[in-house]
Amino acid sequence: MERMKPRTLSGFMELTPARQVQFDRMVELLRSTYSRYGFTSLDTPLIESSEILLAKGGGETEKQIYRFTKGDADLSLRFDLTVPLAKYVALHHHELTFPFRRFQIGKVYRGERAQRGRFREFYQADIDVIGDGSLSILNEAEIPAIIYKAFTALGLRRFRVRVNNRKLLTGFYDMLSLRDKSGDIMRIVDKLEKIGSQKVQTLLEEEGISPDSAAEILRFTQITGSNQEVLTALGQYKGRSEVFDLGLLELSQLVQYLAAFGVPETHFAVDLTIARGLDYYTGTVYETVMLDHPEIGSICSGGRYDNLAEYYTDRQLPGVGISIGLTRLFYVLGEQGYLNDELLTAPCDVLVLPMTEDLTPAIALATKLRDTGLRVQLYGEDKKFKAKMSYADKLGIPFVVFLGEDELSSGLISVKDMTSGKQEDLSPEEAAAYMAGMLKVRNQGTPIKEKTD
Amino acid sequence: MERMKPRTLSGFMELTPARQVQFDRMVELLRSTYSRYGFTSLDTPLIESSEILLAKGGGETEKQIYRFTKGDADLSLRFDLTVPLAKYVALHHHELTFPFRRFQIGKVYRGERAQRGRFREFYQADIDVIGDGSLSILNEAEIPAIIYKAFTALGLRRFRVRVNNRKLLTGFYDMLSLRDKSGDIMRIVDKLEKIGSQKVQTLLEEEGISPDSAAEILRFTQITGSNQEVLTALGQYKGRSEVFDLGLLELSQLVQYLAAFGVPETHFAVDLTIARGLDYYTGTVYETVMLDHPEIGSICSGGRYDNLAEYYTDRQLPGVGISIGLTRLFYVLGEQGYLNDELLTAPCDVLVLPMTEDLTPAIALATKLRDTGLRVQLYGEDKKFKAKMSYADKLGIPFVVFLGEDELSSGLISVKDMTSGKQEDLSPEEAAAYMAGMLKVRNQGTPIKEKTD
Repeated sequence: MERMKPRTLSGFMELTPARQVQFDRMVELLRSTYSRYGFTSLDTPLIESSEILLAKGGGETEKQIYRFTKGDADLSLRFDLTVPLAKYVALHHHELTFPFRRFQIGKVYRGERAQRGRFREFYQADIDVIGDGSLSILNEAEIPAIIYKAFTALGLRRFRVRVNNRKLLTGFYDMLSLRDKSGDIMRIVDKLEKIGSQKVQTLLEEEGISPDSAAEILRFTQITGSNQEVLTALGQYKGRSEVFDLGLLELSQLVQYLAAFGVPETHFAVDLTIARGLDYYTGTVYETVMLDHPEIGSICSGGRYDNLAEYYTDRQLPGVGISIGLTRLFYVLGEQGYLNDELLTAPCDVLVLPMTEDLTPAIALATKLRDTGLRVQLYGEDKKFKAKMSYADKLGIPFVVFLGEDELSSGLISVKDMTSGKQEDLSPEEAAAYMAGMLKVRNQGTPIKEKTD
Repeated sequence: MERMKPRTLSGFMELTPARQVQFDRMVELLRSTYSRYGFTSLDTPLIESSEILLAKGGGETEKQIYRFTKGDADLSLRFDLTVPLAKYVALHHHELTFPFRRFQIGKVYRGERAQRGRFREFYQADIDVIGDGSLSILNEAEIPAIIYKAFTALGLRRFRVRVNNRKLLTGFYDMLSLRDKSGDIMRIVDKLEKIGSQKVQTLLEEEGISPDSAAEILRFTQITGSNQEVLTALGQYKGRSEVFDLGLLELSQLVQYLAAFGVPETHFAVDLTIARGLDYYTGTVYETVMLDHPEIGSICSGGRYDNLAEYYTDRQLPGVGISIGLTRLFYVLGEQGYLNDELLTAPCDVLVLPMTEDLTPAIALATKLRDTGLRVQLYGEDKKFKAKMSYADKLGIPFVVFLGEDELSSGLISVKDMTSGKQEDLSPEEAAAYMAGMLKVRNQGTPIKEKTD
């Protein structure tokens, strides 16, 4: 038979079994963290009608999208989880109760140029709170807490949630009568960290902004300090723009509630350089950076928006949401050596090796151990003893249980701890309790382990 | 702004939040059952190169597949989880340890004619054990146990795993010198339940089979009784075909090990009419029927095969696997009223209603309750009290906690059990323990609840 060389498309992550366990563990922790804050799970189709997905239209998206026809249907693969959410909320509005809090962890598709660390199929892990007509600032204030708890649960420590408020920016540019140019200005200011203030000043002036205004913009953007210091500095601009004042009030409330939400000051910073997608967000915006790896960019971003589903419904559906690019994050963590390889990745906790012709006793033992909650594999292959042990070893299976004639007559089973090499004869009940206890210890710890630990 | 009417493609399941919780609960139970038997999770791309997916070729598959080009790449969406597994094992052979036991629960795509209860995007929940060169019969014998435990965990009771062995059939047709026609014969015999033995006899004769042989085939196929009775009846054919004798040995071993695997006789039957996909399976084959709904067909099927990845590698990779068509099963369970609506589907366990201007105490309380493991939503919307209670009610949130000035001065919080209507003042610690205890009771039970319960 002619054979086809097996391959996986470039830009598509396909993990080894051990890495998959690590990935799944991260997903599970995100699910449980999101659930802890009252978000419900959603799962929408990977494929949508192209006219639905592209209702907003727009350049990059349209170029990168996987679009095709099937019969006479014009179909596309989703490129994010927000547009499908907008469709879902508009379509199922009457079946939902608002505020509607949903999380979704699923794959999205973008036909980007393939390069190391860039993926064409990747997981996003999103949460959004959608209000019907209005939405309390409390939801915006809660988001940094969710980000903090999520990454802490994963084991990340040296990160910081950076927050700004779009109303502050809009209001500030109003004061300078530069609202029309605010988009261009923010794009330039966004480069501050990269190119420095001198070049930003030049670029702003080239945009037709007076040297005084440019200097004013730079001064504003470079307000830094503790959260309280930044709020105090911003207070000096008060009374000149309603929008600004509202933004400042929102930001102050957010900062005020932080401690009650359990977010330490070390993991949170007001940062006036952050703007995020220009025409979408209208209130608080969020970015999250790994302190030791700023070059990675934001690992969790989002913000408050006023109109989730304006392309599908005339209902006003304001919301706030964040997204983690999970596949890329996982890739980066692996590259940086941040994945905790001490946690078990074996497909089972116990390998039962029958040493008798009749397998019935070994099967019954495996069944009994499984009923206690252990993950048990029966090994029935006709191999040499050494090959069987090597199987357990290669997979990192923590315990091997032997069941031979001696064990059958004594009623005890031999349990070998593959880490210590220690072997003990125990009753099945003792063995189950012993292994469960050891596994509890072995399974402690988080999926991410920083090198600085 | 011109608005686009939101819609979801037909043949694509999109659930309400409450239904999604029920679906996710089933997935979670399947994951944990599969894990209990030593299967490791796998997640392969939704998109593969068309030449890889279609290496085997073949009519129906090729017609139904979602195939498209992106740049100059010819791509397809996977139509099952077996072909991607074959590719994965062939590609990553050197990184895997055999037997390789994997489960995968993921979406697959088939552009079938859309009709009620048929889906174009649907979940399959598969397990496979792949050997390198050889694979013990023990793996085949274990499969009915996994099916039994999986459905029992979900709450299904009235079902039966039906088993046959392809070697028995092949050997039997050898005895009649009808091996060449065995494919056609099995297709006809497969209709037995529907059209009756008289018509099967006629169809067989039309196929050029002698009346005697046709009668012989019908006699063989209609061997019924307890597992032991069927094995005894099959014993009469022994010694006439090596293949038959091997099949009988395998089937006998399987039946012998059943009890040790914890499968009751009531949930298992040898059934000689079962054949499954003709040119793929070579040993034990499995089907699973709901006893009260035979019209649904098999809800979990599979079998033993000799050559998983022959299109990609010259390594001999025998295996055994089963698949649950989860989306269709979930749909049918919903239609039949089998989904247990008594289990909680609310997005949170507790709704915290702040009754003070300053939200800090309510936030701190929510944070504290979350730290005990409860799923807590803070409700900060500016609504009337009645609307707030109605929110909890509509979502089926089991507890509402009030925090007003009275509560703040007393240090107690008011906890309302939304089911009983009972309201109590408790310390936060007492409240957390009380609610956790009640929730434990409320969360008991299985996702499926048969009407006969």
